[in-house]
Amino acid sequence: MPQRRDRSGRRDGLVVLGGASARKAPGPAGAVWLVGAGPGDPELLTIKALKVLQRADVVVHDGLVTEEILDLAPAAARRISVAKRKSRHSYSQDEINRMLVAFAREGLMVVRLKGGDPFIFGRGGEELEACRAAGVECHVIPGVTAALAAGASAGAPLTHRGAAQAVTFVTGHAASGKAPDLDWASLARANHTVVIYMGLSQAAPIAARLMEAGRAGATPALIVENASRPDERRVVTTLAGLAEAAAALSGPALLIVGEAMALAQAGGAESLVSDLVREARA
Amino acid sequence: MPQRRDRSGRRDGLVVLGGASARKAPGPAGAVWLVGAGPGDPELLTIKALKVLQRADVVVHDGLVTEEILDLAPAAARRISVAKRKSRHSYSQDEINRMLVAFAREGLMVVRLKGGDPFIFGRGGEELEACRAAGVECHVIPGVTAALAAGASAGAPLTHRGAAQAVTFVTGHAASGKAPDLDWASLARANHTVVIYMGLSQAAPIAARLMEAGRAGATPALIVENASRPDERRVVTTLAGLAEAAAALSGPALLIVGEAMALAQAGGAESLVSDLVREARA
Repeated sequence: MPQRRDRSGRRDGLVVLGGASARKAPGPAGAVWLVGAGPGDPELLTIKALKVLQRADVVVHDGLVTEEILDLAPAAARRISVAKRKSRHSYSQDEINRMLVAFAREGLMVVRLKGGDPFIFGRGGEELEACRAAGVECHVIPGVTAALAAGASAGAPLTHRGAAQAVTFVTGHAASGKAPDLDWASLARANHTVVIYMGLSQAAPIAARLMEAGRAGATPALIVENASRPDERRVVTTLAGLAEAAAALSGPALLIVGEAMALAQAGGAESLVSDLVREARA
Repeated sequence: MPQRRDRSGRRDGLVVLGGASARKAPGPAGAVWLVGAGPGDPELLTIKALKVLQRADVVVHDGLVTEEILDLAPAAARRISVAKRKSRHSYSQDEINRMLVAFAREGLMVVRLKGGDPFIFGRGGEELEACRAAGVECHVIPGVTAALAAGASAGAPLTHRGAAQAVTFVTGHAASGKAPDLDWASLARANHTVVIYMGLSQAAPIAARLMEAGRAGATPALIVENASRPDERRVVTTLAGLAEAAAALSGPALLIVGEAMALAQAGGAESLVSDLVREARA
């Protein structure tokens, strides 16, 4: 896609940096930047993530990072998807680690772009360790993790006086059809929000384990698919209804269980969010 | 402070939006925007937060939001600090709620600006409920919560394969000198990162409770003061050493306890972060 800029430094209608700050510093040594791309809405990138992305020589990205965000990188930057695929070659974590180190050793500015935050279920720690072991400079830019975007969209606080004194993030990823191996007794305690990343396909066993461990079936629950994206869908349910509600969804989704989810509102992406994006492009 | 803009839309050296997107839409009804200002570094604002802030009529902010971020609001916007103070009048949560509703009913665009994310120990849920009860439109913009910035600065992943399969955020805020009332048994389990917000003054009783509940004294721990700010300080210690390390610090700080903190690096703000900010101002 051709990159168009007007005089104000806006490109393809999205806000970008003008002038000096978009130019690369002269001859930096190669380095790896682990960058959180946020939950999907390009406007939920941080300013720092945008600036780093705009200087990238190579962008190594996950499948969850949208084209709209990738297009913010320079047109000349090399893009490599390391998305997990069923039909094509998938990169192992070791291969990704070696790739990042190799590019940095060529003197390139390598941006490892991850959905959400690099250190919340992003395996950023492993990539950082690989860089350190290889003596390659590595920096981390935090991002808005999907749980925060899901709560914001639904109007449901992850912590809330009298309803959620703590919030725990876990991953539901596990061998197909099985419940992940989690500390169910801890997650089942009340007055506590539990956010399950990548848990959609395991919603039935996860809900069953939580209820077996003592969490009430009537506990409010929320599923947010494609949080912050134009196709976001939110389903408000209960722990007892979680499995059935999840069965109707298929995209990347978060399951959120906890008393504070009583405040959650079902629906799609908020119209005002879209208005902001539309206006920026006008 | 006078607001200077050059033709590229940059003001006081910080990146702002050019042209149309900084103008207010014609005659919108009043509304409240709960906006996460991120951990402190202005570049860790999201693009959306920046855009909303740039249209504010009134900014109601906490003490943790810096002048540098507040200066991104229009010069004409009214600023109200509701920071907790010992010497002067402090606003109760009820007073803040009523203020937000009253301004919105005057037809104003009210930005309630909070450090970090509005829904992680920000009491955003209470403000949202007050708006809903009053029939006032309310939107939420998520932000980078301090824990994510602290992990990024220290190079310490909050989740990590084989070391942290979950992360829990709790608050250490409690009556002076007492440990907060938390589920210590759950927090004491291994392979799990615990982030304690506002826990510096309670570090001794918190560490004692965690060890009594079975968490090993040798568990790696990290304290991050003023995460992402120029005066950031990071101390790498263990759960057994947490109280002594905390006693040397006084600013807003996070305590982070967990096996993955073995990767944490002590020190101050990263020089490259400062370079980025300097370059944007050049």
